[in-house]
Amino acid sequence: MKHSSKQCQNCFLLNRKLKLKDTTATALLKAKSIHQVNSASCVISQGCLPMSMFCVAEGKINTIERDLEGREHLVSSFTANHLFPLTSTVSDEPTRLEYVAEGKSRLCSFPLKTVRELISVDSNLALLLLQSACQRGMDTYERVVILQSKSAVEKVLRTLEHFKDEDGFCRLTRKEISLWTNLTVETVIRTLTSLEKKNRVRKSSQGIQITPT
Amino acid sequence: MKHSSKQCQNCFLLNRKLKLKDTTATALLKAKSIHQVNSASCVISQGCLPMSMFCVAEGKINTIERDLEGREHLVSSFTANHLFPLTSTVSDEPTRLEYVAEGKSRLCSFPLKTVRELISVDSNLALLLLQSACQRGMDTYERVVILQSKSAVEKVLRTLEHFKDEDGFCRLTRKEISLWTNLTVETVIRTLTSLEKKNRVRKSSQGIQITPT
Repeated sequence: MKHSSKQCQNCFLLNRKLKLKDTTATALLKAKSIHQVNSASCVISQGCLPMSMFCVAEGKINTIERDLEGREHLVSSFTANHLFPLTSTVSDEPTRLEYVAEGKSRLCSFPLKTVRELISVDSNLALLLLQSACQRGMDTYERVVILQSKSAVEKVLRTLEHFKDEDGFCRLTRKEISLWTNLTVETVIRTLTSLEKKNRVRKSSQGIQITPT
Repeated sequence: MKHSSKQCQNCFLLNRKLKLKDTTATALLKAKSIHQVNSASCVISQGCLPMSMFCVAEGKINTIERDLEGREHLVSSFTANHLFPLTSTVSDEPTRLEYVAEGKSRLCSFPLKTVRELISVDSNLALLLLQSACQRGMDTYERVVILQSKSAVEKVLRTLEHFKDEDGFCRLTRKEISLWTNLTVETVIRTLTSLEKKNRVRKSSQGIQITPT
């Protein structure tokens, strides 16, 4: 992992939505580390002390949890501009999850001590982290509904809806939709073809779009 | 819903783990509302503005999300002493989830305005809410693994482990295990009987216990 303190274009600090105090922004930028990670690199492993607050600047970081037989399960996926605090941010306890890079990714980490200190002087940072943590919970609730649904059509449509970008296009691969829905890749392909025939989805170079009704 | 400001024995403020400032504790107690809710009462409905921060004092509150066909899915379950902040705590946006009472329950709510004001003067409250929100995320990750697992034994064992109390007993009913794992009640009963025969679980009046290895 490379360490640098240069400013990041995707940095959440530059996000217009945030209204952090100038002193908070400066302190966070100063304390930040930038990590370039390659495919299958484990960013945080089970039992490791995590590095507090993270932001995915580029690429994708998947969260993997192991079941009793050692099989890996995808529990969440963070794409660029996703800020994620960890339980361990506040409890200092090791995490049982692994955060693994998909392809080439870049992420920024902010040390535990700095984040804690800043929360005590800037409550906006606390609210921002709280919002991010709650949003993660909501995202996973969506996943639970998808996994509980009986119909493949429902699973695929909800996944497309959940991962669509601002233009309404979902850029997930068939393999990724299959991992997310727990359907086989073959079923995902069949379902998409059937939805396309019924004019419920449209495929293009930008991704898959649910046909507006 | 009844409104009162009397102190609650199960109140999270009385939890020894918390080290809130006296002024924070007093302000929260003063602003708190206590709600007695009956089975199937909807505490917060889709589209309603939520009441900020909640604590389940007694009973159980289930979180329900609806799929595209209107079927209900259980996405989480909060039992007594569970504190839960909502996305809307910080974003003011309506929630698409419903929080529904199971049996007779009692819960306390803390107004948005008060919570926000207090976070700005007591960062411990912010860290506490952040921890609670992150823990909710971790709990739901566990659920995602359970729903993705192929074996009924794995699903049932993980559920027992996840819901065990301090003495190691899980007090969920067969119906509740079935809702959590998406298995039929018949499969849950068959799996539990088979695990009992293999001496991997023990049933007693206190609940079901995984046999210590």
